[in-house]
Parts: sequence; C-alpha cells; structure tokens
Amino acid sequence: MTETRPDPLVIFTPSGKRGRFPVGTPILTAARQLGVDLDSVCGGRGICSKCQITPGVGDFPKHGVTVAADALSPWNAVEQRYKDIRGLIDGRRLGCQAKVAGDIVVDVPPESQVHRQVVRKAATARAIEMDPATRLYCVAVQEPDMHEPTGDLERLNRALAETFDLPPAQADLQVLARLQPALRKGDWTVTVALSTPREGGPSKIVEVWPGFHEGGLHGLAIDLGSTTIAAHLTDLADGRVLASSGLMNPQIRFGEDLMSRVSYAMMNPGGDAEMTRAVRAALNTLIGELATEAGIDARTIVEAVFVCNPVMHHLLLGIDPVELGQAPFALATSSALDLAAAALDLTAMNPGGQVYILPCIAGHVGADAAAVALSEEPDKSDDLVLIVDVGTNAEILLGNRSRVLACSSPTGPAFEGAQISSGQRAAPGAIERVEIDPETKEPRFRVIGCELWSDDPGFAEATAATGVTGICGSGIIEAVAEMRMAGLMDPSGLIGSGEQTGTPRSLPEGRTHAYLLHDGSATGGPVITVTQGDVRAIQLAKSALYAGARLLMDEIGVDAVDRVVLAGAFGAHISPKHAMVLGMIPDAPLDRVTSAGNAAGTGARIALCNRAARRRIEAGVRAITKVETAIEPRFQEHFVAANAIPHATAPFPNLAQAVSLPQVGFGAGAARGDAGGRRRRRG
Amino acid sequence: MTETRPDPLVIFTPSGKRGRFPVGTPILTAARQLGVDLDSVCGGRGICSKCQITPGVGDFPKHGVTVAADALSPWNAVEQRYKDIRGLIDGRRLGCQAKVAGDIVVDVPPESQVHRQVVRKAATARAIEMDPATRLYCVAVQEPDMHEPTGDLERLNRALAETFDLPPAQADLQVLARLQPALRKGDWTVTVALSTPREGGPSKIVEVWPGFHEGGLHGLAIDLGSTTIAAHLTDLADGRVLASSGLMNPQIRFGEDLMSRVSYAMMNPGGDAEMTRAVRAALNTLIGELATEAGIDARTIVEAVFVCNPVMHHLLLGIDPVELGQAPFALATSSALDLAAAALDLTAMNPGGQVYILPCIAGHVGADAAAVALSEEPDKSDDLVLIVDVGTNAEILLGNRSRVLACSSPTGPAFEGAQISSGQRAAPGAIERVEIDPETKEPRFRVIGCELWSDDPGFAEATAATGVTGICGSGIIEAVAEMRMAGLMDPSGLIGSGEQTGTPRSLPEGRTHAYLLHDGSATGGPVITVTQGDVRAIQLAKSALYAGARLLMDEIGVDAVDRVVLAGAFGAHISPKHAMVLGMIPDAPLDRVTSAGNAAGTGARIALCNRAARRRIEAGVRAITKVETAIEPRFQEHFVAANAIPHATAPFPNLAQAVSLPQVGFGAGAARGDAGGRRRRRG
Repeated sequence: MTETRPDPLVIFTPSGKRGRFPVGTPILTAARQLGVDLDSVCGGRGICSKCQITPGVGDFPKHGVTVAADALSPWNAVEQRYKDIRGLIDGRRLGCQAKVAGDIVVDVPPESQVHRQVVRKAATARAIEMDPATRLYCVAVQEPDMHEPTGDLERLNRALAETFDLPPAQADLQVLARLQPALRKGDWTVTVALSTPREGGPSKIVEVWPGFHEGGLHGLAIDLGSTTIAAHLTDLADGRVLASSGLMNPQIRFGEDLMSRVSYAMMNPGGDAEMTRAVRAALNTLIGELATEAGIDARTIVEAVFVCNPVMHHLLLGIDPVELGQAPFALATSSALDLAAAALDLTAMNPGGQVYILPCIAGHVGADAAAVALSEEPDKSDDLVLIVDVGTNAEILLGNRSRVLACSSPTGPAFEGAQISSGQRAAPGAIERVEIDPETKEPRFRVIGCELWSDDPGFAEATAATGVTGICGSGIIEAVAEMRMAGLMDPSGLIGSGEQTGTPRSLPEGRTHAYLLHDGSATGGPVITVTQGDVRAIQLAKSALYAGARLLMDEIGVDAVDRVVLAGAFGAHISPKHAMVLGMIPDAPLDRVTSAGNAAGTGARIALCNRAARRRIEAGVRAITKVETAIEPRFQEHFVAANAIPHATAPFPNLAQAVSLPQVGFGAGAARGDAGGRRRRRG
Repeated sequence: MTETRPDPLVIFTPSGKRGRFPVGTPILTAARQLGVDLDSVCGGRGICSKCQITPGVGDFPKHGVTVAADALSPWNAVEQRYKDIRGLIDGRRLGCQAKVAGDIVVDVPPESQVHRQVVRKAATARAIEMDPATRLYCVAVQEPDMHEPTGDLERLNRALAETFDLPPAQADLQVLARLQPALRKGDWTVTVALSTPREGGPSKIVEVWPGFHEGGLHGLAIDLGSTTIAAHLTDLADGRVLASSGLMNPQIRFGEDLMSRVSYAMMNPGGDAEMTRAVRAALNTLIGELATEAGIDARTIVEAVFVCNPVMHHLLLGIDPVELGQAPFALATSSALDLAAAALDLTAMNPGGQVYILPCIAGHVGADAAAVALSEEPDKSDDLVLIVDVGTNAEILLGNRSRVLACSSPTGPAFEGAQISSGQRAAPGAIERVEIDPETKEPRFRVIGCELWSDDPGFAEATAATGVTGICGSGIIEAVAEMRMAGLMDPSGLIGSGEQTGTPRSLPEGRTHAYLLHDGSATGGPVITVTQGDVRAIQLAKSALYAGARLLMDEIGVDAVDRVVLAGAFGAHISPKHAMVLGMIPDAPLDRVTSAGNAAGTGARIALCNRAARRRIEAGVRAITKVETAIEPRFQEHFVAANAIPHATAPFPNLAQAVSLPQVGFGAGAARGDAGGRRRRRG
C-alpha cells in the first residue's frame, strides 16, 4: 500500500508567497516559479551569490509549518568554495544550491532582491526601487557547431532567453567585435551588460566580459549647471553613491550666464560647437576622476543621466542654442532622449553605454526643473508647495495634487558668489554663515571646512590652512539679511554711513558705503566687505526669484503658500529665516521652509536607478503648466516691487512673528531706493 | 419639398475601389479613405505632383456609371502653375486639387502608385514592388508658441501624424541640429527623409530639407566581393538604377583569396582593422564616384544594402575574421543587420542613412548566397534548380519548393582571371569568347568591347584602341573547353604536344605544353597562351565547384538536376555548353542552363527597394539547410573525381547529345591525370 505524500511546502518571506515543490527543486527555481523577487546574475551556477537566502528552522505558527533541520539539501561544495573565497554570512545559503527536502520557510534578505529599495539620504527619506536600465547577466553559451551554423551573438541570445527569459538583444559593432574573443577566453561563459532603456522595448548588449564579471555596473547622475557640473558615480546594483565630484563648467569663459553664451554662439560662427566641445571634454575629465576615485574600470560605467537647463541641454547635444535666446524660445526637442554615450563623445565612460536626458518642460524651463519635480513630487503634495531651485537660473515649481506650474527666472550668478566683490564659490575658506549683533553691529561668521564661529577660541588656528578667502552664496545671503536685521541697511537696500549706523565698519566707498565683515590684511589675507554693489546684485537676483514665484502664485490665485522647499546645489545651505528676511521667497511658516539639497541631482539619481521614474517624469512634464516669465508683463511689475528688503509686494505675517526688523532709512529717498537717494544728494 | 440626392460616386481604376463622397472632396482624400494606392509627398498641397490622376469622361458600362464633363472641379491655378513650371501630361489632374463634383471614374497611373511595380531587367522578368525603408514627406509644421512650449521635433512629429498618419520618429543629433534652421529657412515647411527599417517599427528622421525637397532619395545596392566591389545607385522612388560602378577590393593587397586575408589578420596584429579601413575607404570612393556620375547630392543617398561573403562581412563590420578561418567557422553574428551608415564610416553617403546587411547563412555561406536566394527564389521553383554563383568563392544553392540546401566552395580566383598566365579581369581588350576549329585546330576569339570575331575583316582596326590584352574568366573557360572539344587536350587535362595534336600551336613549355591562342608580339602586344598550369588551375576551380554541387545533390539523393542557373558578376557571360564540357556543372538540358547575371547584386537591389523582401530572406535563410564542404569527407572524394574534363562522376546524356568529345589520351597515365603522367615519366 503506497501513501501519496504531498510535495514539501515552500514559503518565502517577506513576500509570503508559497507553493509546493518536488524534493530536489532548487530554492531559486521555486522562487522564479512563484514570482518571488530573488536576484541571480549567473543563472543559478553558484558564481554570483546574488541569490543568498536565510532558511528558517523550527515552528512558524504564523505560516502554520514546522521546519525540520534537514528541510534543505545539505551545505554543498559550491557554497563552501564560495564562502572560503568571498565569505558568506553565517546562516545564509545560496538559493541556486540549496534544494527543497521538506517544508521550509525561506527569507529573502533585502540585498538579494532584484528590486531592492534604497533609502535616499535626502531630508524626506523616500526609497528608490532599484530598476536600472542596464543589468548584468552571466550565461553559458552553446559552442558553435558546423551542423547548426548560427552566429555567436545568436547563440548568446538563445542562452539569455533560456536562462533569463530575455528577448533577443542587439549589439553595437564594437561589442560584437569583442564578443568572439570574450566567449573563447571565458570558455563559453560570458557576462553581458544588457541595456533595456524602456521596459518591454529593445535591448542592447553594451559590454561583454569573459566568464563571470566581478566588477559590477555603474552609472552617473549628472547635474550640468551653467556654472558647475556635479556628478555622482552610482553602483547600479544597490544605488550607493561611490563618489561625487564637481567642476566648473568651462563654458564660463564664453559667458557667465545663459544669455551671454547664447550671444556668444550668435556672434561667433562655430561658437556653439566650441562650447559643445568644451563641456564634453569637461565631462570626460570629471568622469575619469570619478572612476579613478572609486577605483573602478571605466568600462563598467554603462549609464548616465543628465539634468540641465535648456541652453546647457542644447549645447551638450551639439545644437545651436540661438532659438533659446529669443522669443518664442523654441526648443529643438523637448522630449526625453535615449542616446549612446558615443553620440555625445563621452569616451571616459563606456562609449556604448546609454545616456538618458530628462525631458525639458519649456524653452526656459529645462530638464533640471523636471528632475526637481521628479525628486520633490509637488504633484503628490496635499498642501501647496513652492519649490525653488536656486542657481544661475532659478527653476520654480508651484503646485499640489491638483495642478503644478513651472517657470524659470534669470537670477544671474550672484547667488553662486559670482558678481559679488568678495564672492567665491563654495569651497573651504569661504564664509557661509554670518551673524551681526544688532547692538554692537559686530559680525561673526563661519567658513566652510570649520565648525567654529569666528569669535570662538581657536578659530584662527582651525582656519590657518585655508584662511578666510571670500563669501559664498549662502554667506552673502545671510550677510545682507543680517545687515538689514541689524539696522545697517534700510528697506531700499541702502547701506548707512558710519554716522548713520554708529559703527566704524560702515566704510565709505565712493558715493556709497560698504560693511566690513573681515579684515585679514594683518596676516596677508583679504579685506572682505559687503559693498553697495553687492547688495544691488543680490537685490536683482532675489527680485527675479521672488517675481517668478509670485507669477506662479498669481496664476493659481493665491497670496501665500503652505510650504517652501529650497533646492539647488547650495539650496541646502540657505537659512530659511535669512531667505525670508531678504525677500527671496514668499512668506511662509519658518518651520515649513525646508531644504531639499541638490534636488535636480537627486532627480537624476532617481532616473538613473529606476526606469519607471523616467516614464513618470515624461508623463509628468506634460501635465505641468508652463509660465513664461519673459513675456509676462506682470513679471516686470513683480520684479520692481520685490526690490525692497524684504519685498513689499505681500504681507509676511510669519516673518514678522520670527524677526523684528528695524525701521531705518538712510537716504532721503530711501523708500524709493538708492537711485532716489543719490538723486536727492545730487539735487 | 426637398429631394435627398446621394453623394457622388467615385470609382478608382485599376483597383476598382469605390465609394460615395460629398461634393468638394479632393480626389486624394477620397483615395486615402478608400485605401487606394495614390502617392503624395507634400500632403496635398499641390507641390509634389505625386498624386497625378487621369479622370475619365463618358460611359463606363463596366462600372455602371456615366461621367459628365464637369464631374470634377475645374482645372485650377495650382495645377496651371505646376504645369507651366514642371509640365503635366494632357488629361492629367493633381489628385489633391481636383475635387468631386459628380459621379466620376479616376484612373491612378502606375507612376502615381506608392507601391508601384518595377520590372527587373534580369532574364526572368519579375517585378519589384517599391516599398523602400526610407521615404520623403513634406509637411507644414506649426510655429512655436510660448504658450505651448513643445520642441520643434515634437511639432514636426505632430505634423507628420496629422498629415500622413505616421507614428513619432526619432532624430539623430546631427539631424536635430539642422532641424531648427531648416524649419525657419523653409518658412515652417520642411521635407524629411524618414527611415522605417521595419514596418511598424521605430522610425528615424535621417535628413531634413527646408521647404519641398526636389532631389529625391537614393540608395545603394552593393555587392562586396573578395575581388571586386560593385555598386548600383538606385532611385528610391521608382527603383531605376541611375549609375553603376565597380572597383577592385583594395584588400587584395592583403591576400588574393579569403583564407589568405584571414591569415593576414591572424599573423598581423591590427591587420583586420587595416583591412576594414581599406574597404571602407574604397566604398567611400565608389559612392562618391556614383554620386558625381549621377549628378546627385550625396545627402540624398540615405540607404545602402550590402551583400558579401562572411569574411567580407566581418571585415566590413570591423570584426576580426579569425574564427572564419578555422573549424567550426563561427560567425560573430548571422542575423541581418540594420546599422547607421556612420557606424561603418560611410561618410560619402548620408552618414545618418541606414545600412541593411543581408543575413549570413553559415560561416562559409554568406549574405551573398542569401541575396542569390532572394533573387532566384529556389524555394518557389517547381523543378529542382541548381544555382551557382561563381566567384573567388562559389555559392551554391540547390532546391525546390520542398527544400533548399546551400554550401560554398573555395574555387579560388581562377574563374575571375587571376592565377591564369594570361589572365585579367573582365575589361575591354580581354578575350571573352573562344572557338577552336576541330579540324584545323585554329582558334578565333572575341574581346570585350568589340562585336567582331578575330577572323572577321576589320577586327584589328576595331580593337586597335584596346588591343588584345589577356583572357578573362569566361574566356579561359571557353578556351579550355574548346581545347578539349578540338582534341588538343585529353580527359585528364593534359595538353598534347604538337606531334600528338598535329598543330604548331601546341608549344613546348618546360615538361608540358601550352596552346597558342594569340600572338600579338609583331605589333608589340602579348603572346597569349593557355598553359598546362592554367588548365590545372581551372581544373581545381571547376572540381571544387562541381564537388560542392554534387554534395548538395547527394544530400537530396539525386544524380541530376532539372535546371541550372549560372550567376555571379561573370556568370552571365559563361556559355552553358562550355561550362558543361568543362564539367563545372552537372549534366542538364542545355536549354535549361540559364544565366541570372549578378544575382547577388539583384538580391541586394530587391532588398533595397522592398522591406518585405528583407523579412522574406531573413525567414528564408533559417529554412535553408547548410552543408559544410570543409568537414564533409565526400567533398574531397567528389573533388578528386571531378578532375577530369568533363567530370567523370556522373553520366552526362544531355551533353553527349550536344557535343561529341574526341577520345584522346596524351600521357601514358592520362586517365589518372598529369601527376600520374609525370610519375610514369619519372619511373
């Protein structure tokens, strides 16, 4: 009499998926059949160790099973070899080696999941699900046979189909040329980097390695700004940032801001191509540095995602930006782009690798704004959020679940420390925080690279190496706001004379005055002042920023927003209070003004790690209402009205609660600003 | 009281499609709605004239209508302007201008059909339906608008969708860079060349012209042979060949035949890249010459189709052919390829243009054999057909509706006039036809470029310009066969001495003899003989060819074939009788041995003009049974047995009916060939 015993029960955690499988079924096979998210690069040959699992033993009342100690096949030689060479956490097994022997509960640790979640470092800790466009697959390929004369590529594709259920992939000629030697060197096992930019779309083999490739795959999230280029080298398996670096955009020598670069292209035949070559060369330098810093092979860099404003976008692509310099600011293309790295001359990464460029929103609102939207998701916000990405050009988004608007505003480079008398970019030695005592009018400050304030003991020693070299963007914002709060400057932005402010730090400078922040001349250092010109530059920049935000608020029909997010390479460093005193942003509860860090860069990283995010932002930008500042007469009105410090175009109850601003006026025409003041003096 | 009259009836011929349309409907619109094949590049703006129609008047009993003289709207200014400037055949109207006014019968002339049929010049006059992968479309694009800030490419795509119902196309960066100036120069009308290599697949804009582009589109059908490269410049609108040209493959300096080139690559590091550069440079030269000859702009050359053997295939692609030089002769890829011209450095055509390379059948049976199959369609033959493409490597196909087999055979360059003492390639002055009087043993011949025989009066004068310079492939075949028929040579291939043959033209040459074909020394010309070495070279070549054919016949299990097709650049010039006397091909009724001309080139032209043909041959090659000569022991047996003239491996009743061959034997070991003869002489 035979008794039919059911096959053992296999339960996976955390998914809870379960099924019965015959004794001897590899756990990896069971996982595949149940659709459990268990990774494998080598197709189950005990090479890649991506399929690590933790078997449970004992009672699992929740699952209704008791697991015996011998519920899996015994630890085998492949696992021992792997453990000896690479190490394996105690209690872990390889899912491709461990086979079903009895009822079993199998836990899939997070790092063994294909679509593992990566927690973002940003303030708002959201997870990115790993689903990069390029993945590694290791396969054994059938040897060629004269009786079945298919090509090596065709047999590789067949192996990919059989082992990983993948559709046939194409290969660039350069990769095809390397395929035959790789197959033979790897004794008919190769690892390929397979790029599938669009899920379900065509795939391309971008690289091939003999045998099992240990070196992983890497991607670049690149924020190509007018002034600086920032790049993050990312591990495409787990989303970790391995190295970050930045350098100045070499196009600066053709013009500081966007419009001057467009002018350069218009005035100089071939000027656009010159700028294209310059930025591509800089990108190669930057990528090379990142690869060296992280100690990785440049051929493993198979993906890059770019975010940038429209002018940078066109110059990167090799398109003359002339149309972006004049109404109606027509983009050559606004869609997202999938390109080969070689098409952009990016030879420092794998030239067969894939580049993704986020869509542009409009001729003045670029892929960088799209990236901010992807990162900050205003379309998922219940309350009305204003997102300001501060740079040479500010990208401004306003919206909530029901509607999102966007514009850009030409703030100029003042916020990045350029066009400021003692300005410099954010680097060790740059003043980044400023406080001015309202009573004594004496300042204290902090510099980048040092935790101490300038009046703390030991400051001089701690900053001896760098010195105090200048003021960066966040420093100048705080300095101007503090000057206003300390009564050194009136609402029109006019700096008072020593007589008017009662401090010798108010130095005469021509017909105007400057405030002495730091005198390093005794030790051969610079004399750092905030001049009237500096204040005017900041006023222009912040008026443009505020006017843009205000235009979007008009469009929605509101006078206030629920919260403000400051973004941008230096957005993280701006003090909400000072930004509001300055009138950069509309009034909002101070605790609801937060920083998103480099949101555009984060957006690029999200798009790098997750294909669905690319589709999301491609659809998202179509739903965004674009507001063009350049043709909107109210922009000019708002701009002029926002000149005062703080701006005088709307009430600021939240600011009034937090800060009391002195009622001062240094020119007779003070309320009308410096020009008025000067006029009177002349008269 | 109102009477409802039905809309007028519109009937199209030759399709017979009919429908009722409101008065005022343009004929082009009616055609589109009924699915009538009526061309239009300009989208109905009276620019392109592709939609010409011939309206009928009077009784059409077959269609059951009577057409009034005013059944169409009157001849209009657009049509008059077109006629004045470009001419229009009397009775023709423009389908986009002529509007329905009453019941009407409209004939669509062949040249107005999108999918017009082009009759091939080849002996078997079959039609190619025009359906090239790249087509012109002229559209008016909406001007940019700040309130709807899409890119120019996106608006162009919208225009293509609205006017031609096309899905969105991508554009290479180079084209994108030209799009904005073209749109503005063309006052928002542009013509684009849109490539859609796979019907229903993605499209790419490969070129853009301001306004309406007059210059048409062109494609290249390129037969890349080991010895010669032949290219046909073709009009992609109607399939006409505008210019044909050929040049020597410069890789010859690295090795005359395929295996010597593979050896060069193996022995010289970087040798494969050197050969790749050489062939690509030659292609650019050839393409440039064709464009100049036809007087067209190289940017209009937007397609190229290549056929070639596997070694040429790999060297064109930049893949080291080393694997093709040794068993198991693994191809890097066997599939058909769609590539950008730039990927092959083909800068003499539009670098954004598309290249299609036919699939390879096996490591020794290339895209050239696939092209022959596409052209000659053995899979559609009711009787068993043997197709032999004669070149440095012979491609051999045997089959019928039920089965097709293929192999290649290394004939060497003798058939192309190389390795022959007086050999030369087919060019004016080369002997191409030979007759030898069996009685007098005196020869007469014809040379390329002259219709007269050498014994005709005026021959010397007619050939004075070129002279008689050597023997080309077809000439040497006829010479050797005629020598056999005239009793100057025995079945083993041994040339008899003057004593044995009774003619002073049998000249001693070392231990062997040569036959004097022409002595031009009196006028400073060459002495042209057929030497024993020449006969041996032809014997080797024809034995290889026959053995390959025989191997396929064994595989199918037949001793005879129903018909033979001779193909190849010089296949057209081979006399069937001489080929059979020589034993190049199996016995077949002489009237069933035909020439297909350059069938591989024709196959390339078919694939150039018709996308469906590409899909057909891609599926076709998978159904072909590949036979590998190199590993088949019987190939060697057949090769040895086929040495005699004619071959002695099978009966040849058809040949025996046509020709009576003298029973001669010049060596004591004659039946075993020269080697045996020599051996005996030594013994």
